[in-house]
Amino acid sequence: MENWTRDWKVKRVLFIPYALHDRDAYAKTAREKFESLGYELESIHESSDPVEAVRKSEAIFIGGGNTFRLLKALYDNSLLQEIRKRVLEDGIPYLGSSAGTNIATVGINTTNDMPIVYPPSLLALGLVPFNINPHYLDPDVNSTHMGETRAERILQYHEEPNTPPVLGLREGAMLLVEGDKATLQGVTGARLFLRGEKPTEHEPGTDFSFLLTDSNSQKP
Amino acid sequence: MENWTRDWKVKRVLFIPYALHDRDAYAKTAREKFESLGYELESIHESSDPVEAVRKSEAIFIGGGNTFRLLKALYDNSLLQEIRKRVLEDGIPYLGSSAGTNIATVGINTTNDMPIVYPPSLLALGLVPFNINPHYLDPDVNSTHMGETRAERILQYHEEPNTPPVLGLREGAMLLVEGDKATLQGVTGARLFLRGEKPTEHEPGTDFSFLLTDSNSQKP
Repeated sequence: MENWTRDWKVKRVLFIPYALHDRDAYAKTAREKFESLGYELESIHESSDPVEAVRKSEAIFIGGGNTFRLLKALYDNSLLQEIRKRVLEDGIPYLGSSAGTNIATVGINTTNDMPIVYPPSLLALGLVPFNINPHYLDPDVNSTHMGETRAERILQYHEEPNTPPVLGLREGAMLLVEGDKATLQGVTGARLFLRGEKPTEHEPGTDFSFLLTDSNSQKP
Repeated sequence: MENWTRDWKVKRVLFIPYALHDRDAYAKTAREKFESLGYELESIHESSDPVEAVRKSEAIFIGGGNTFRLLKALYDNSLLQEIRKRVLEDGIPYLGSSAGTNIATVGINTTNDMPIVYPPSLLALGLVPFNINPHYLDPDVNSTHMGETRAERILQYHEEPNTPPVLGLREGAMLLVEGDKATLQGVTGARLFLRGEKPTEHEPGTDFSFLLTDSNSQKP
């Protein structure tokens, strides 16, 4: 995480704690961590004008928790378009973990979270033209559990028409996107699911730039 | 399952396969199973008038798959009110497994499934005034996985206002509801989550009739 703003003169990070219920506690934890890394942290829930906070932000970090709660709060505060503009047009760095990763993609269709609230749509920021399943878990061959595996759930998503690729990011993996280049970071690798194709395994260092082109994002 | 229609003169069961993509294959599997138990099975997807099929049904079985897909299809076919009426007013037996269990409760807020489609609401049949988490999994104390446990996800649901009880039904457990009596069946027990209270463990045979009273379903 230390290097995610390496090419930027970022001093202050805007934190969005909406995915957890106790925003004060979450901001406190995040602030301590970011300050230890040399950044100031402003939490959006302490701002009287969240939209203006996004407009003035130098970098944005959205933390994990419940993805439905996070997305609903972003809609409730009219922040999706603002964040999209700040990142895609103005080019400030965006960092997301867990729910904050789901939210950066086309939609939250491949979240692991329970739908504890009902957002007005499942469409998210669309900073990248595909979906991610964070905390991706490989099937446990010894399991007697009769619920679907993570891979089966993603395949069910791809049974629906016009669904984009899904990148299963294991614990310890992250995707670095810079301009038109996307690279798999971390140590655990990732599993890529394309609609109608067999899932493929990818090592750390894999160049995923081809996922950034729209032609790959909507397979018929 | 053999006894779920024991007090009824049921010969034919209406099957609703909407939770899986391949409805023909799902109906074939279900038909073989029900015929081996001595029942005829009619699959609603083969009917030209699904609403009429519900009105004429002697018993309804909704199978598992993806809960969002199932709920959306029930809304798309205007079946929620019809099934509710048939079961609650006319008193025919209802059997649900997995997604079919989620759908019988207040809402699908505690499903384990991914939101692969967007239903017009999360509210479900409301045959009982609480929610269920099917395939409930106990936390794995040895896990290094950083995603939330099932219990943590349910607690996040209860951080939201006016949320009903959630019954975590393990693999191998089922809830038998007859009139104003609810009993835990099966061999694995269940875990009950009430808003603002510590979860409690319950053995097979537990009388859960108190969950059927509305006073328990909406804690402030």
